Amino acid sequence: MSEIGVGIVGGGYMGKAHAVAHASVGALFNTRLRPRLEMVAASSRASAERYRAAFGFRRAAPDWETLVADPHVEAVVIASPQDTHRAIVEAAAALGKPVFCEKPLGASLEDAIAITEAAERAGIVNMVGFNYIRTPASQYARRLIAEGEIGEVTWFRGEHTEDFYADPAMLASWRTSGMANGTMGDLAPHMINAALALIGPIGAVMAEVETVHTDRNGTPVTNDDQAQMMCRFTGGAMGHLYFSRIATGRKMGYIYEITGTRGAIRFNQEDQNSLWLYRAEGPEAERGFRQILTGPAHPDYLPFCQGPGHGTGYQDQITIEARDFLEAIADGASRWPSFRDGLAVSHVTAAALKSHATRQWQDVAQLKGDPK
Amino acid sequence: MSEIGVGIVGGGYMGKAHAVAHASVGALFNTRLRPRLEMVAASSRASAERYRAAFGFRRAAPDWETLVADPHVEAVVIASPQDTHRAIVEAAAALGKPVFCEKPLGASLEDAIAITEAAERAGIVNMVGFNYIRTPASQYARRLIAEGEIGEVTWFRGEHTEDFYADPAMLASWRTSGMANGTMGDLAPHMINAALALIGPIGAVMAEVETVHTDRNGTPVTNDDQAQMMCRFTGGAMGHLYFSRIATGRKMGYIYEITGTRGAIRFNQEDQNSLWLYRAEGPEAERGFRQILTGPAHPDYLPFCQGPGHGTGYQDQITIEARDFLEAIADGASRWPSFRDGLAVSHVTAAALKSHATRQWQDVAQLKGDPK
Amino acid sequence: MSEIGVGIVGGGYMGKAHAVAHASVGALFNTRLRPRLEMVAASSRASAERYRAAFGFRRAAPDWETLVADPHVEAVVIASPQDTHRAIVEAAAALGKPVFCEKPLGASLEDAIAITEAAERAGIVNMVGFNYIRTPASQYARRLIAEGEIGEVTWFRGEHTEDFYADPAMLASWRTSGMANGTMGDLAPHMINAALALIGPIGAVMAEVETVHTDRNGTPVTNDDQAQMMCRFTGGAMGHLYFSRIATGRKMGYIYEITGTRGAIRFNQEDQNSLWLYRAEGPEAERGFRQILTGPAHPDYLPFCQGPGHGTGYQDQITIEARDFLEAIADGASRWPSFRDGLAVSHVTAAALKSHATRQWQDVAQLKGDPK
Amino acid sequence: MSEIGVGIVGGGYMGKAHAVAHASVGALFNTRLRPRLEMVAASSRASAERYRAAFGFRRAAPDWETLVADPHVEAVVIASPQDTHRAIVEAAAALGKPVFCEKPLGASLEDAIAITEAAERAGIVNMVGFNYIRTPASQYARRLIAEGEIGEVTWFRGEHTEDFYADPAMLASWRTSGMANGTMGDLAPHMINAALALIGPIGAVMAEVETVHTDRNGTPVTNDDQAQMMCRFTGGAMGHLYFSRIATGRKMGYIYEITGTRGAIRFNQEDQNSLWLYRAEGPEAERGFRQILTGPAHPDYLPFCQGPGHGTGYQDQITIEARDFLEAIADGASRWPSFRDGLAVSHVTAAALKSHATRQWQDVAQLKGDPK
Ligand SMILES: NC(=O)C1=CN([C@@H]2O[C@H](COP(=O)(O)OP(=O)(O)OC[C@H]3O[C@@H](n4cnc5c(N)ncnc54)[C@H](O)[C@@H]3O)[C@@H](O)[C@H]2O)C=CC1
Ligand SMILES: NC(=O)C1=CN([C@@H]2O[C@H](COP(=O)(O)OP(=O)(O)OC[C@H]3O[C@@H](n4cnc5c(N)ncnc54)[C@H](O)[C@@H]3O)[C@@H](O)[C@H]2O)C=CC1
Ligand SMILES: NC(=O)C1=CN([C@@H]2O[C@H](COP(=O)(O)OP(=O)(O)OC[C@H]3O[C@@H](n4cnc5c(N)ncnc54)[C@H](O)[C@@H]3O)[C@@H](O)[C@H]2O)C=CC1
Ligand SMILES: NC(=O)C1=CN([C@@H]2O[C@H](COP(=O)(O)OP(=O)(O)OC[C@H]3O[C@@H](n4cnc5c(N)ncnc54)[C@H](O)[C@@H]3O)[C@@H](O)[C@H]2O)C=CC1
Repeated sequence: MSEIGVGIVGGGYMGKAHAVAHASVGALFNTRLRPRLEMVAASSRASAERYRAAFGFRRAAPDWETLVADPHVEAVVIASPQDTHRAIVEAAAALGKPVFCEKPLGASLEDAIAITEAAERAGIVNMVGFNYIRTPASQYARRLIAEGEIGEVTWFRGEHTEDFYADPAMLASWRTSGMANGTMGDLAPHMINAALALIGPIGAVMAEVETVHTDRNGTPVTNDDQAQMMCRFTGGAMGHLYFSRIATGRKMGYIYEITGTRGAIRFNQEDQNSLWLYRAEGPEAERGFRQILTGPAHPDYLPFCQGPGHGTGYQDQITIEARDFLEAIADGASRWPSFRDGLAVSHVTAAALKSHATRQWQDVAQLKGDPK
Repeated sequence: MSEIGVGIVGGGYMGKAHAVAHASVGALFNTRLRPRLEMVAASSRASAERYRAAFGFRRAAPDWETLVADPHVEAVVIASPQDTHRAIVEAAAALGKPVFCEKPLGASLEDAIAITEAAERAGIVNMVGFNYIRTPASQYARRLIAEGEIGEVTWFRGEHTEDFYADPAMLASWRTSGMANGTMGDLAPHMINAALALIGPIGAVMAEVETVHTDRNGTPVTNDDQAQMMCRFTGGAMGHLYFSRIATGRKMGYIYEITGTRGAIRFNQEDQNSLWLYRAEGPEAERGFRQILTGPAHPDYLPFCQGPGHGTGYQDQITIEARDFLEAIADGASRWPSFRDGLAVSHVTAAALKSHATRQWQDVAQLKGDPK
Repeated sequence: MSEIGVGIVGGGYMGKAHAVAHASVGALFNTRLRPRLEMVAASSRASAERYRAAFGFRRAAPDWETLVADPHVEAVVIASPQDTHRAIVEAAAALGKPVFCEKPLGASLEDAIAITEAAERAGIVNMVGFNYIRTPASQYARRLIAEGEIGEVTWFRGEHTEDFYADPAMLASWRTSGMANGTMGDLAPHMINAALALIGPIGAVMAEVETVHTDRNGTPVTNDDQAQMMCRFTGGAMGHLYFSRIATGRKMGYIYEITGTRGAIRFNQEDQNSLWLYRAEGPEAERGFRQILTGPAHPDYLPFCQGPGHGTGYQDQITIEARDFLEAIADGASRWPSFRDGLAVSHVTAAALKSHATRQWQDVAQLKGDPK
Repeated sequence: MSEIGVGIVGGGYMGKAHAVAHASVGALFNTRLRPRLEMVAASSRASAERYRAAFGFRRAAPDWETLVADPHVEAVVIASPQDTHRAIVEAAAALGKPVFCEKPLGASLEDAIAITEAAERAGIVNMVGFNYIRTPASQYARRLIAEGEIGEVTWFRGEHTEDFYADPAMLASWRTSGMANGTMGDLAPHMINAALALIGPIGAVMAEVETVHTDRNGTPVTNDDQAQMMCRFTGGAMGHLYFSRIATGRKMGYIYEITGTRGAIRFNQEDQNSLWLYRAEGPEAERGFRQILTGPAHPDYLPFCQGPGHGTGYQDQITIEARDFLEAIADGASRWPSFRDGLAVSHVTAAALKSHATRQWQDVAQLKGDPK
């Protein structure tokens, strides 16, 4: 067991979450590498200093460049806005340092490609931050499907819906401009990643992307409020995805419903400790969706609690990510979801935007320029 | 209060339901017209006789022609297969008799047009059998939306999903051939009707229609197992509809979720006595979807029970239809949903099939040949 | 198949429900005996006439005595207040006519004993109206437990809670005086009956009975608002029952939760079409309560609908009672729940009241004067 | 912001939970005092060393005496079995060190009294570990009730039910002997504490305590599997509590249902991020229990996540306790729940055991020897 100096870029929503994760991950998972909160960077030296004091870092950096370059920073966590991701990854890659980058990989498909290539060229351990799929319930769902427990998948419905911009009277902000901050940029990646992880690659999409409230108090809104896409998985399943930041009443609607020939699965992040499983087995009179409460029998639950049904929460997802990142560094090999997995998500996003623009089905492989 | 002789064509699933409805509707709703179960017809004289005895009709007809023509049959209820609907309606219309016809209106768009025109030309009272929307919960949802209680609708998601053909080992049958018997023909109309009733006309659709199990024990399946469509309501809302007869685990998945700018509504027919309403009102800390149990305060509940939460069921929906049919006859004027409303549903279905064939968005008005 | 003339005493809440049930039961269940709505009686000739017209009876009676005595009334249904039950039963028994009596059996334990003895002495077919236990879900629960599917029962929790008197500002009425109209008299019998039917006899109880709002607008309230009792079943299980008419928010809280050594069952009448079953079987990671939607595989569902999850409602419970009453008459032998079963409920109620008065555990058998 | 050396006695289920809590509490809550994991003690030097390495303590103690006495240990957390609590508290009190002690306070009422008196005499900051009540949902419920939002409370139902000993085939263990390890000792305190916190003091109880499986593989079981009690709060409300370790299917059944004259609350720890609130307000047709998802608007949520509905988990409850313990130390004054609050729980437990033994209602104040 040895220490590793961790530097985090950003101390906001996710910067804090990663700081907390690295503070407790060792005790929780008995990891081989034990993180030391070495340095934090932010948009100003003053805010970095505030984060340092609040979260318990040893030092505050004047800027992310200093943090990345610091010899005591042995691994970098990026929790700053999408448009900063690329430069930070490239700098860390140049120095051969492992990087964890929050979703999505940069502010555009180009960024995502550059980020992935930089990391792979440099051979650094890399990981992207799709945390919701880390719950014991979703990890278990993924395993059930992979092992064929619900048979051949025929239908996938996913959504990521919240209502933080539902009120038409809410003012414009940085969130209402820039595609990377719209619903497709901000919320969609989580559920697209879930679709890919649970079911497999998406072959083609047919999408609609919409700005419902095009003007907020006189300021034009330049990114999307909601979007939907029909999709066809390469494995054959039909699918549908929906994303919204104006879904009145939905707080954390990361929801999926999966139909297979021998069973079905339902999940709603608003009750993240339950997985609903139906098996087309046994007497008809006893069939039904059963509410499985996660517990020590499910992946990554036991370290948090010995009692089933006692529940894990949002922060625990981030801690599971930290565990995987540290173990990947200890192994010297990236784990899922690597930047390449994040890039696959960006490709689907890009295909959806193109489909919307052309009002046509868009082949994802074709967009990627894959040889047929 | 006077009696009316009712003739029912068909004594199967729905024929029985309508017979029961007409047996009790008078006592339940104190209707002006009191039905007398005058005559039943079926595919054979023998089966009609069996139905007569079981359900308590006065007479069995050798065939539907006899029933329609019988002078003591003053109103006709059609509960026979889709391909019989048109001829029966035309015969009844020719005699000026009121007709209630089970959904969908015939076996094709052509049938639906012919049926509607025959009825309207003859000026007969006519009604189509969309029963699910008749629950107190859905009636109340419709009212809430119409009165603007959830604001401007921005999103509608509907599905009608069941699993009666989910098992790939199930044998082919009459249900697995003929578009009118597939998912688009059989299940979709109910939810399309709900979408139109709750939100308003659909302007355009982009659909996928799929036969997942193309062969059942050596017999080819010639109609669809599942279908989805993105849609755009003329009022502006984005929407999505999904239909399936292979939705493992779903028994009666007539489900809708509606987002408005000031509230939201959720409903699942599997718990038909609950309506979930969210209002974007009051302190943030107290907002949430509330589970409203239907009761005497909701439409058409009180006649069934004085106690709230005591619940209505499937059969009660059919009885509510019977009430409206009888009241329409007493008034001499059709009530919603008339054949024209049923035809609107058939137009959406047809647009979806065309969209699927062309892989393009299909304008519904254009398909109807409406002047732009 | 032959007709039987039915006379109903009362045309209020339950009188109507039974009239509707008898109007449709034949068509629904293809019963051997087909009821003819012969006569209705009420508290006045005028109201009886109103009920006759509304519900479709052939004749209105000036009083219940006339109804019971009428030669065309071949079976009597009692749906009038508790204090009328005894005299009506005794009159019908004297004439050898089958009687269905709404719960509870009269206004006191003395009434219940007299009613039961009168019926048994006369050898008439008799039945008491515990309708909630008639849902397909509760019938199935009963079967599962009887067949040992959840193992040995160790715990039973039941409640019957509504909120029709929850508002302290509600005025006093006939409901707020007379023990037979209080919570113990009015609501408790349903759930006590459920406890007896699902688990078996209750050996002893320890109860508290309370009038929370002792005064309503200056008028004293002389019966109970809520009551609870701990109980011990003779089969060994521990139990608890709670009843309330002031349970703010509860509309139809007929709820039970049953723990066995190998499984568990939960039911809530507010969602009467779901039964929740847990089996302590299979891998730990897949265990959970499953929501079984009732369907054709469950008792008495199919006659109402061929589709699972389509749902039955309150009125259907009454129709199932009517079916059993008619079949019992056809057989010439009472079916469960007979008056004796209703009396068993009254004995538990009486034991609870005595326990409350003495603040001691009360043995039920001892109260009945059973030889030990 | 200054550091404080924390020593934890025990490194099992709760010892680990507290270690993790102290590792992250500073970053999460920006506490004035920042804990340093100074020392851990366990039942052997070897296990203490194992915990040290796993959880990241600086030092392992050979025994708890050493830990308590160590000058760098400035606050003590007790997470060892109930029969060790008293001696540890007394030792820490003698040295004037703040103590957090897991529930229940020792192995008996005598222990609880001694523990409380030792702490109060010494004037040390003290706190007892009732974590479940710390969820944002339950904190908010408590506030709603205290502010009169649901009116006068008329009924409280609580349970703490799990199924870890439900299988009759499970072997005897240390858990199946010693009252402190039975259901009343182990599970009841959490829900009794909730009852006291949410509603207020309990005046009298009438209880039943039962060992259902009296023998496990030949070894007698000497403590209780389940228990129930009726109770009367001094504020007037009627109540019922139930506890079980054999509640097949229940994983974390910390459940309460509270009825007030103007509203009602329901909570189930198995879905700890939802609070169900009913308000007897607004049009009848729109009333219903609403599912409030916890979020930044609720107590102690925001530090864990900026997004509502994203959820907190078991471990977060322990971290909230750590925050309060540290803040209490910083203030130099105990916060709720202090040892005296833990003692109040023990008094109810003792009253229940006495009631069971005497089969009589037991006054709690009388048992405490309080002057009337
Ligand atoms: N996985 C998840 O659940 C979530 C992921 N995210 C992702 O996390 C990332 C950060 O988002 P939030 O934490 O919500 O943002 P935030 O606005 O709360 O925090 C951003 C942080 O980045 C810092 N920052 C900004 N520009 C910087 C620069 N040039 N150099 C150094 N630091 C800079 C700011 O000082 C601030 O501390 C984004 O990529 C976002 O998409 C955000 C929220 C949830
Ligand atoms: N609203 C709803 O919930 C439902 C509506 N339906 C609709 O009801 C209609 C009937 O369907 P089901 O009752 O399920 O069918 P079914 O197969 O159970 O019964 C069909 C009945 O029609 C009779 N029939 C067939 N050919 C006939 C002919 N040439 N002349 C006279 N009678 C004839 C048969 O004897 C039989 O009694 C269809 O249009 C169907 O789409 C069906 C099920 C549910
Ligand atoms: N099973 C269930 O779910 C329910 C059962 N009940 C039971 O049904 C019975 C009737 O209750 P409700 O229908 O609620 O009462 P209600 O007040 O709605 O109707 C009572 C009826 O009895 C008639 N009546 C009163 N005195 C009479 C007399 N001396 N002779 C003839 N008719 C007389 C009245 O005219 C009225 O039609 C009671 O025993 C009650 O406990 C009531 C409600 C629900
Ligand atoms: N708040 C909650 O949710 C829970 C509270 N508890 C409480 O926490 C306490 C500990 O229980 P668990 O962690 O479940 O037990 P555990 O058996 O998992 O761990 C007990 C720990 O105490 C240590 N220990 C035992 N005897 C000792 C001694 N004489 N000196 C020093 N260390 C000693 C053991 O080495 C072990 O590390 C108990 O009071 C229990 O009631 C337990 C579980 C849940």
